[in-house]
Amino acid sequence: MWVNGFAFVGGSLFTVSTGGLTFLNLRDHTGIIQVTTLPDEFRDAHSTINDLRLEYVISVEGIVCSRPKESINKKMKTGLIEVAAESVQVLNAVKSKLPFLVTTSDNAKDSVKEEIRLRYRCLDLRRQQMNFNILLRHKVVKLIRRYLEDTHGFVEIETPILSRSTPEGARDYLVPSRIQPGTFYALPQSPQLFKQMLMVSGFDKYYQIARCFRDEDLRADRQPEFTQLDMEMAFTPLEEMLRLNEDLIRKVFHEIRGFQLPIPFPRLTYAEAMNRYGSDRPDIRFDLELKDVSDLFLGSSFRVFSDTLESGGIIKVLCIPSGAKSYSNTALKKGDIYNEAIKSGAKGLPFLKVLNDGEMEGIPALVSVMDSPSKVQFLRRCSARPGDLILFAVGNQATVNKTLDRLRLYIADELDLIDHSRHSVLWVTDFPMFEWNDSEERLEALHHPFTAPNPEDMNDLASARALAYDMVYNGSEIGGGSLRIYKREVQQKVLEIVGISLEQAEAKFGYLLEALDMGAPPHGGIAYGLDRLVMLLADANSIRDVIAFPKTTTAQCALTRAPSEVDPHQLKDLSFKTK
Amino acid sequence: MWVNGFAFVGGSLFTVSTGGLTFLNLRDHTGIIQVTTLPDEFRDAHSTINDLRLEYVISVEGIVCSRPKESINKKMKTGLIEVAAESVQVLNAVKSKLPFLVTTSDNAKDSVKEEIRLRYRCLDLRRQQMNFNILLRHKVVKLIRRYLEDTHGFVEIETPILSRSTPEGARDYLVPSRIQPGTFYALPQSPQLFKQMLMVSGFDKYYQIARCFRDEDLRADRQPEFTQLDMEMAFTPLEEMLRLNEDLIRKVFHEIRGFQLPIPFPRLTYAEAMNRYGSDRPDIRFDLELKDVSDLFLGSSFRVFSDTLESGGIIKVLCIPSGAKSYSNTALKKGDIYNEAIKSGAKGLPFLKVLNDGEMEGIPALVSVMDSPSKVQFLRRCSARPGDLILFAVGNQATVNKTLDRLRLYIADELDLIDHSRHSVLWVTDFPMFEWNDSEERLEALHHPFTAPNPEDMNDLASARALAYDMVYNGSEIGGGSLRIYKREVQQKVLEIVGISLEQAEAKFGYLLEALDMGAPPHGGIAYGLDRLVMLLADANSIRDVIAFPKTTTAQCALTRAPSEVDPHQLKDLSFKTK
Repeated sequence: MWVNGFAFVGGSLFTVSTGGLTFLNLRDHTGIIQVTTLPDEFRDAHSTINDLRLEYVISVEGIVCSRPKESINKKMKTGLIEVAAESVQVLNAVKSKLPFLVTTSDNAKDSVKEEIRLRYRCLDLRRQQMNFNILLRHKVVKLIRRYLEDTHGFVEIETPILSRSTPEGARDYLVPSRIQPGTFYALPQSPQLFKQMLMVSGFDKYYQIARCFRDEDLRADRQPEFTQLDMEMAFTPLEEMLRLNEDLIRKVFHEIRGFQLPIPFPRLTYAEAMNRYGSDRPDIRFDLELKDVSDLFLGSSFRVFSDTLESGGIIKVLCIPSGAKSYSNTALKKGDIYNEAIKSGAKGLPFLKVLNDGEMEGIPALVSVMDSPSKVQFLRRCSARPGDLILFAVGNQATVNKTLDRLRLYIADELDLIDHSRHSVLWVTDFPMFEWNDSEERLEALHHPFTAPNPEDMNDLASARALAYDMVYNGSEIGGGSLRIYKREVQQKVLEIVGISLEQAEAKFGYLLEALDMGAPPHGGIAYGLDRLVMLLADANSIRDVIAFPKTTTAQCALTRAPSEVDPHQLKDLSFKTK
Repeated sequence: MWVNGFAFVGGSLFTVSTGGLTFLNLRDHTGIIQVTTLPDEFRDAHSTINDLRLEYVISVEGIVCSRPKESINKKMKTGLIEVAAESVQVLNAVKSKLPFLVTTSDNAKDSVKEEIRLRYRCLDLRRQQMNFNILLRHKVVKLIRRYLEDTHGFVEIETPILSRSTPEGARDYLVPSRIQPGTFYALPQSPQLFKQMLMVSGFDKYYQIARCFRDEDLRADRQPEFTQLDMEMAFTPLEEMLRLNEDLIRKVFHEIRGFQLPIPFPRLTYAEAMNRYGSDRPDIRFDLELKDVSDLFLGSSFRVFSDTLESGGIIKVLCIPSGAKSYSNTALKKGDIYNEAIKSGAKGLPFLKVLNDGEMEGIPALVSVMDSPSKVQFLRRCSARPGDLILFAVGNQATVNKTLDRLRLYIADELDLIDHSRHSVLWVTDFPMFEWNDSEERLEALHHPFTAPNPEDMNDLASARALAYDMVYNGSEIGGGSLRIYKREVQQKVLEIVGISLEQAEAKFGYLLEALDMGAPPHGGIAYGLDRLVMLLADANSIRDVIAFPKTTTAQCALTRAPSEVDPHQLKDLSFKTK
C-alpha cells in the first residue's frame, strides 16, 4: 500500500541508527507518524530527510508497514506502524529561528510565556494542547448545533453586529458612521433585543453562536469579544426551558467528558445561595456553609458586634472543621487569609478557635462576655466541634457575603477540600429584579430590564423576584437567562423603576415597545458563555487557551498588533479627530 | 387525541357559518391550521374566539379531527383536519393598528413598500415569503456545515471581529480603542489573513460562516455587513479544490432546488470570458457572443474606426439574431438601448442591420467604404444572417467589453432570450494577478495580494496569471478564491509590485511574512457570498430579503434606527470628538 503524506516535521530530533536507517516523526493536526528511510534503496529520500530541520513542511510518499518488534511503541497511537519513505519533497523550509519548540508543554518547567505564545500564535497553535483545545471547541459547537437542530427544531438566525447602543449594560464598542457623521453603530453586548424581535416575528426556537462585545477593563477571564451560545423560545414555560437546557448541558458533558450529570439539576434560590454560600454561583463540591449568627449577638456587650447589628448590619460565620491547627493566630491576624478578608472589604477578621473542653479562644473581649449557655448555643449554630476554627464577617450584608464567599473558596483550595472528581451543576433561580446601585443612587436591573418579574410579586415590583435562572458549574456561571416581559405595560413599568423615562425608552428602543403591541408571544431564553464552557470542558487554564486568536488582558492582539494607528485619510473620511 | 396549540392568529378574517360554528385560521412558523368552535358545547372558547382580532396570540386546546367532506381544502397542507377548540386563551392582544397585513404578498398590487417592511420587520418576517426565506437560509447553512464536517472533516474556527486594518481592500469600519487613544480596531473585510494563519498553525481544513464588513457606498445588492462561507485548505492541489467545491455547490442546489448541476463545471479562462462575453462573470444561458473585428478595420478609410485602432483601441460587435426588427433606428439612436451603451462609457452606439440581400444599412459612411469581400468576411465573422442587428463598441478594451456586456444582458432580458429553466454554473480561472489602477497610476491586485501567481509566469510577475478561480451562477459571482502565496520571497515581490514597500509590509502584516518563514504549508481556499447564494436559491429579489435584520441602502437599520447619536460620556471615554 502506498500513501501520500503531507505534514509538518515533528518535534523530536532525528536519530540515526547503527544500520544507517534514519527515523523522523511527521506531524499533522491528527497526530504523529514515524517515517524511515534507507540510505541504499531510496538515496534521494534519505539524503533529503537528513537535511531537514524542525518544522519543515514536507511531503512523503512511501509504504506503510508494521514496525519491527523492537521499535513498537505502545504509548503512541500509530506506534505499530511506520512509513518507509520512497520519496521526500520539501514543500517549505523554516528560515527564522523558532522562538520555542512545538513540543513544549504548558506544564513543563520550560513552559513558554503567554506573551510569546500569543505573539507567535501559529507556532503555539501547533502545540498538542492548543490543537486539542481548538478541536474540542469545534466538537462542542457541532454537538450543540446538532442537538438543538435535530432534537428540538431550533433555527439558526444571524443578528446584526453593526447595531445600536442600548442602555443598562457595560460600555459599548462604537463604530463611527461615515455616511451620517456624528452618529455611531454599537457592537452588540448580546443579541438580546434582536432575539426578542425574532420571537415576535414568529420563529419560536432560535439559536445562534453569537459574537458579543464589551469594552470593559479586562479581568483575567474576560475578552473584549466573546462568543455566546444564544437561545430563545416562545410559548415555553419555565420548567420546560430548564429541562431542555439540562438535557443539552448533560449531553455536552457526557459526550465530551464521559460522565453523566444528575437530572434534574439541583436548584437554589438566589436568597438561599446568598444565605448559605454568600454567592449566587456557589461551588457546592464542598460544604463549609455560612451561618447567620446575628440574632445571638443582639444587645451583646461586645460593642463591635452589637453596634453593627443596631445599624442594620449582620454577622455571619464560617466554621472550618479542624481548622484551628491549619491557621496560626499570626496567619489569621496578618497572613494571606487575613488579606483575603480585607481585599473583599472586611475591616478585620475576627476568629475563634474551639478548644477541647468546648471553651473558645481568639477574641478575649468577645469570649469573656459570652456566658455558658450562649457559648453552647453559638457552637451548636456553627455545628462546631473541638479543634474547629470559626471566622466572622461583620458589617453590611453585601460585604459580609462577599468576604465569606471569598474566604470559603480560598480555604477550600488551600486545605484541598475540593473533590476534583466531583462535578457540581445547579440552577440559581428567583433572582431579585433589581439591585441598588450605590454610586448612581438608583435601582438597576440585576440581569437586564427585559427580564420578566414573577407574577406573584407584581404588587411590589421594586422588590419583586425575577423569572431568571443561572446555570452554575463548579462555582462558575456558565449560562444565564430568563423569561422576558412580553406586555408593553409591564415593560414600561420596569423601565421606569430603573430610571428610564417613557420618552427615553421610546427614543432608545421604541421598536421593542411597538413590537410588544403587535402580538408578542410569551418567550424566554438563555445565553451561555461559550469560551468559558469550552475552557471548563477542556480543563484549560484560561479562556485565551480555547480561542484561536484572543486578545491580551490589555485588549490587544499580540499577533497583528491591533488596535493600531490608521492612515489619516481613513480618519478624514469619518469626519472626526482624536483629541 | 388532545393537542395544545400555541400560535398566532392567521390572516384570514373569521367567518361565522349558518350553524353558528366559528372558523379561525391559526398560524405559526410551520404553517396554518383551522380551528373551529361550537357555541353550545364550549361557550367560553366560542366567545373568546369571536372577540379575537388579527395577530392576537392565543393558545388553543382541543381535539384534532377530520374535516367534514364539504370543508376539505386540498390546496392546504392541513386541509384534511381541523382543531375543535375546547378552550381558548388570549396570551397577548394587538393594541396598535397594524401597518400592513401579514397576508400581503410581495407580488401583490398592494405590496408593501420596503421602507415600511423594514421599519416593522417583526410583522414583515411573519409573512410567508420572508418566513420561507429565513428558514431556507438556515437549511442552506445547515447543509453546508454538515457536508464540510461530515464528508471532509473541516473544522469550524472563529476568527476575530476586532481586528487590524489591512491595505488593498475597500474602506474599513473602524472601532476606536478606549485603552489606547488614537488607535483603532478594524472590522474584518474577510478572515483572509487569519485563515492563512490557521493553515500555518497546522489545521488543514478550516471553515467558518463569517461576518464581514465593508464601509462602501452601497449598491442595491450590497450590505455594510455581510456573511461569507469562508474555507481554507492546506496541501490541496487546485484541481482537488475545485472538485470539492463543485461537489458542495452541486449538493446545495440538489437538496434545495432539486436539480443536478452537471460536473465537472465548465471552465472559462478570464481571457476567454472577457473576449467572448466582455465579463468575468458571464451568463451563458444564452449565446450572443462578442466578436472582435478589429483586424477587419485596420487602415479602414472609416476614420472613427481606424483612428481608434491606431491609438490602441479595439472594435467588437454583438450580433443579435433577427434583431433588426426588434430595435428601430430611432431606438438605437436615442432610446433605452442607446442609453445603456452611453452609461457604460461608450461614446455612441454604431450599428448595422443585415438586409435580405446580404447588404447592410445603418452607418452610411461605414457601409460605403466596405467592398464586397470585406462585407462577406465581416458578416461571416459575426455569424450574421439577413434580419440580424449588429452593434459596435469602439474604444479601449475595458470600455468596449463593459459596453457589450451591459448591452448583451439588456437585450437578453428585453428579448426574453434567457431560458429560466436552465442553470448555468461555471468557473472563471486564470485571472491576471494585477490590473492597472488609472486614478492611482499603479498596479493593484485583482483579487488580493496574497493570491499565488501561476508558477509558469514567474519570469514576468507583473503580467502573470493568478491561481485564482471564481464560481459564477447565472451571471452572478457566488464564490471566489485562490491558492495563496506560501513563500516569503514571492509574497515580498508581489507586495512590491502593488507598491507596498518591505518596511510598510513589515509594519502592516509582518506577522504574515514571519509565519511564511516558520513552516507554512501550501494552501488555498475560497469564500462564498452567503447572502447572495441564498438569495439566488430562494429566488428572492434582494439580499435584504434573506437577512433577518438588514441595513437599508443608506446603511441604516430601519428597525432600531442605528447608527444613532450616543451619550456624550461615551465619546468622552474614547477621547475624541466629532468635527
